Amino acid sequence: MGLNVAQKLIEDHLVSGSMEPGNEISLKIDQTLTQDATGTMVMLELEAMGLDYAKTEASAQYVDHNLIQVDSKNPDDHLFLESASKRFGLYYSRPGNGVSHPVHMQRLAKPGQTLLGSDSHTCANGCMGMLAMGAGGIDVAMAITGEPIYIKMPQILGIKLTGELPDWVSAKDVILELLRRYDVKGGIGKIIEFYGPGVKKLTAMERHVIANMGAELGATTTVFPSDAEIRKFLTLQHREEDWMELVADEDATYDLYEEINLSELEPLVAKPSSPGNVVPVKEIAGTPIYQSYIGSSANPGYEDFAIAAEIVNGRTIAPSISFDINPTSRQMLTNLVQEFHIASLLKAGARLHQAGCNGCIGMGQAPASGRNSLRTTPRNFPGRSGTKEDSVFLCSPEVAAVSALTGEITDPRTMDFPYPKVDELNNVNIDDGLLDKPLPKEEAKQTELIKGSNIVSIPEMDELPETLEVPILLKVGDNLSTDEILAGGARVLPFRSNLPEISKFTFEAVDSSYVERGIDSKQLGGHAIVGGFNYGQGSSREHAALAPRYLGLRVVIVKDYARIHWQNLVNFGILPLTFSDEDDYEKVDKGEVLTFRDLRNQLQQNDSLTGTIQGIEEEIQLEHNLSTRQRDIVLQGGLINWIKSRQLQNE
Amino acid sequence: MGLNVAQKLIEDHLVSGSMEPGNEISLKIDQTLTQDATGTMVMLELEAMGLDYAKTEASAQYVDHNLIQVDSKNPDDHLFLESASKRFGLYYSRPGNGVSHPVHMQRLAKPGQTLLGSDSHTCANGCMGMLAMGAGGIDVAMAITGEPIYIKMPQILGIKLTGELPDWVSAKDVILELLRRYDVKGGIGKIIEFYGPGVKKLTAMERHVIANMGAELGATTTVFPSDAEIRKFLTLQHREEDWMELVADEDATYDLYEEINLSELEPLVAKPSSPGNVVPVKEIAGTPIYQSYIGSSANPGYEDFAIAAEIVNGRTIAPSISFDINPTSRQMLTNLVQEFHIASLLKAGARLHQAGCNGCIGMGQAPASGRNSLRTTPRNFPGRSGTKEDSVFLCSPEVAAVSALTGEITDPRTMDFPYPKVDELNNVNIDDGLLDKPLPKEEAKQTELIKGSNIVSIPEMDELPETLEVPILLKVGDNLSTDEILAGGARVLPFRSNLPEISKFTFEAVDSSYVERGIDSKQLGGHAIVGGFNYGQGSSREHAALAPRYLGLRVVIVKDYARIHWQNLVNFGILPLTFSDEDDYEKVDKGEVLTFRDLRNQLQQNDSLTGTIQGIEEEIQLEHNLSTRQRDIVLQGGLINWIKSRQLQNE
Repeated sequence: MGLNVAQKLIEDHLVSGSMEPGNEISLKIDQTLTQDATGTMVMLELEAMGLDYAKTEASAQYVDHNLIQVDSKNPDDHLFLESASKRFGLYYSRPGNGVSHPVHMQRLAKPGQTLLGSDSHTCANGCMGMLAMGAGGIDVAMAITGEPIYIKMPQILGIKLTGELPDWVSAKDVILELLRRYDVKGGIGKIIEFYGPGVKKLTAMERHVIANMGAELGATTTVFPSDAEIRKFLTLQHREEDWMELVADEDATYDLYEEINLSELEPLVAKPSSPGNVVPVKEIAGTPIYQSYIGSSANPGYEDFAIAAEIVNGRTIAPSISFDINPTSRQMLTNLVQEFHIASLLKAGARLHQAGCNGCIGMGQAPASGRNSLRTTPRNFPGRSGTKEDSVFLCSPEVAAVSALTGEITDPRTMDFPYPKVDELNNVNIDDGLLDKPLPKEEAKQTELIKGSNIVSIPEMDELPETLEVPILLKVGDNLSTDEILAGGARVLPFRSNLPEISKFTFEAVDSSYVERGIDSKQLGGHAIVGGFNYGQGSSREHAALAPRYLGLRVVIVKDYARIHWQNLVNFGILPLTFSDEDDYEKVDKGEVLTFRDLRNQLQQNDSLTGTIQGIEEEIQLEHNLSTRQRDIVLQGGLINWIKSRQLQNE
Repeated sequence: MGLNVAQKLIEDHLVSGSMEPGNEISLKIDQTLTQDATGTMVMLELEAMGLDYAKTEASAQYVDHNLIQVDSKNPDDHLFLESASKRFGLYYSRPGNGVSHPVHMQRLAKPGQTLLGSDSHTCANGCMGMLAMGAGGIDVAMAITGEPIYIKMPQILGIKLTGELPDWVSAKDVILELLRRYDVKGGIGKIIEFYGPGVKKLTAMERHVIANMGAELGATTTVFPSDAEIRKFLTLQHREEDWMELVADEDATYDLYEEINLSELEPLVAKPSSPGNVVPVKEIAGTPIYQSYIGSSANPGYEDFAIAAEIVNGRTIAPSISFDINPTSRQMLTNLVQEFHIASLLKAGARLHQAGCNGCIGMGQAPASGRNSLRTTPRNFPGRSGTKEDSVFLCSPEVAAVSALTGEITDPRTMDFPYPKVDELNNVNIDDGLLDKPLPKEEAKQTELIKGSNIVSIPEMDELPETLEVPILLKVGDNLSTDEILAGGARVLPFRSNLPEISKFTFEAVDSSYVERGIDSKQLGGHAIVGGFNYGQGSSREHAALAPRYLGLRVVIVKDYARIHWQNLVNFGILPLTFSDEDDYEKVDKGEVLTFRDLRNQLQQNDSLTGTIQGIEEEIQLEHNLSTRQRDIVLQGGLINWIKSRQLQNE
């Protein structure tokens, strides 16, 4: 039977397991990607694991998140990451070089390979015919040491694209349409693979836009074929030799099917405060805005900025609008400058920011309170912009640009000028001056790590006890994001390598008393958290597991989990359970004490566990869904302990 | 007898007093300038004073300091400033439009006029044949209400320029040479006026560079003639009608004389951590650097960036260097883009930041700890970069650019390529899209102020008591800067309109226990501070007086004061005294209690005061140097009370 692209990629990298959906499989990882917000911790983990030299084909450390340097913390981290990249044989992309996903796509991505990244939008490089997945930092550290990655074999959702995008409608509207249909958990447990005649009509960068925001569907990843468009892209990058064809077999099938006729799409917008809250732009046209924001890995391409520039060229933005332009790579910015697009944007009234993630992760350009912000970024979770009660709408560059002109959310098809055409770029500015190559092994070994005072080692963690008797410190609802567990942004991210400090921000938006109560619980054996569906959606940051663990979290019980966060909980030795009967969610309350007896034995022997709740007679039935390996990790108190014991066994 | 330019400007604006050095004079103010860090407080003061509509010819509110938006505080302030500008009839320069001084020069400065600004570098516009002075925010608020400004008539220091700048030597080296000769207090009580044949060889923007850093000499201001070069500059700005000739009479004289032969200058650098710590670059050539930084109002011109771009064009910066480019206005950035200079900088490896003050005031680009930063900014006071124990060197764009290429401080004359010539710009991009004009009066009156939650009114302040018995909470040395009294930077500046919050940072770099001890002292009648020479040098921020006053500061005793801070102390009702005998500085110690009896009477009747120090028999003799008006202000507890009582008298 023929294989689809995802199956070919998996088969080609399969280390263990069989490819039936739901089975645990392990995969060889060819490339890794780390950014600075998660990367400092990954580097500390590599140091703790005693890594000699990266065992992957290419691993790259990017600096794109923490570019705001208001004291020595961020620049000290940059120096640490630079020294660690030299020490462990990684590429190092210096501050100012751009956002990891587009830079990786431009300079390192290879069709046919696997990529694991400590950033939830790593899936963006699925546009290149890669199997590109986000994961917790420690999983990426494992991959760099040559270990395979373990995942549940996903279902493959085949999406047939037909037709062609009309004027004023762009790739962003394709993924917004999927979010409209499936919402933020519709992709959980699935790989999304695009096929059909419509694929050929999308450039590599348009595919990047779509693959990137597969993360917002909760998908394991998104896969596009590697075809003539990818060859063209790599040729422009002077990397034609890295191209290989990778397309689905003629008789390939999918586990699930969907279809989108591109010709029938219209401009869409995701309303506050979820990427799944999608409506046609025309439905909310006229909503006043304070800010129009272009940039981020969700619209990172030359064309995304060039179309905005052509739209505002010779025009002026509306009064009082902040029109924020965030280039995504130095390569692309240079091209935009050379083609006069930056001049067009500036003349129209733009604020031009440095190349990086910037406001997409709350590092700058936060909106004023009570004002609407319209953005091409992938996420609008509450508070992610940096402003506490924000109101962020997500859209295409076309919608953002015309709305900057009118001062309100505007369906671009109602403008009195034709859709401008952007000339294709025939010559890309290739310049790896800020992308340092890995040092040769012998030279690498002589490199010393440069550690600033804000970089603190991870404390030792204890194993799972026989009896757990812990209070429920929090009970939360559905779709709780990792941003709500531990915010990003300029206040928090600088402490990402300083666990005692960063843990002080845990759950602050949910319950400001949590941290203190957590610390208190630690002395008495820890605590539990209860939640609803899609717990831990959003950013892949492992600190959202590590920080509550540091504060005494031992067990989480929810209706279901977002994949990456579930894995992060396991990795740091937190027992992630689900209700056997979802109605039991109503039975448990904050403050009650949960008791598990004979816990280690229960976990080793069964797929389900029982616990008792203070004051309720009947036992509560819970599932854990963990593989033998994962049970072992949780029992030992987390992955670092697990690796340590494996190393002891090997000695 | 003929007049020099400064005397002509003063004579033309004299409201009271006579022009003998040392006399208090009052001057009519034509224009004002406020930036956002000081401006929110100015707007609150205007509101408290009940201003109807600005009485100046042109008053402009700029947003250039607090551009980092990591939460709603800064953007809320921007909205407040926008609404206040509309309400009070001011120009409003939106975020992204650029740094106040160059933008004001380009769009609003007029030869022959006076300009008062709540920014210590307001003197930069002295390059335009203006009398342009920095002052405390409340002085500027007074000026906007139509009140004259009171100053001591300064001495005029005439500096004759001869010769012509050699290759690789620039305007920055002229002012660094003056700092080498005079140090950071050499200009106190003086207006610096440039004359002679060398002046003609300097463009308007080169004069801006020199005038700007007159602030670092402690000068009242710097004045250049308005000649053909200024006409040329205004013509390029499509403002030829604003030009008038203003030159010294043939027989003009100066109180003091100095001479600089431009031809004999060489590249200079100010070592850490004072702008007066100047040596030839060749003396410290080879010092490794972490960062090369171009921008700020000390090198704000098109030519400053263009020469750097030409120097690095076709070359690549050294490994590990952060090459930070900070454009100073949108107008200029657009021109730099159009002339391909931005492309040259990017290709060499630059990080391009948004137009604004940025790292010059600690808002971004702080260096890593223990690393050297080379900057074209005007100041390198300890910690001003944002990094606590920083090491910042000041230099010209030429030195910064060549050092970025070599990775170490480099005398540009040792490079193996000739000094590149920058083509003069013949067409400036005139675009006031982000510079909103004042509303007409009737429309202005209908504007409501938009106040975010972080904008808090100034509490009432009590008058000077008859008996002051206060402990000395701090004793500091010479040249204490306002940065050390109350830091700038991203941690502190967002609270500039929230006195209870911002006061928590007072003197933190000097003595972290000061705030708590200050609050304690408040209940018992307040406290005193003792200092050495040039107390309060540097930034003009009035919060450096307002915050300690809020914490109970009633009297300061030092050897002498920096002018603006002295005025700020008076304005907020703090009694600023000097030792009659400087040796008495040694007699007083931290912790001792100072007692002044019959204080109000002593202050009203005499130029000197006596106080007693606990445990010392003899009385200590102190001077106050205050005019009758200033005594009255201090007696009433500050300027706001004084205006209130004047308004009551007028009713």
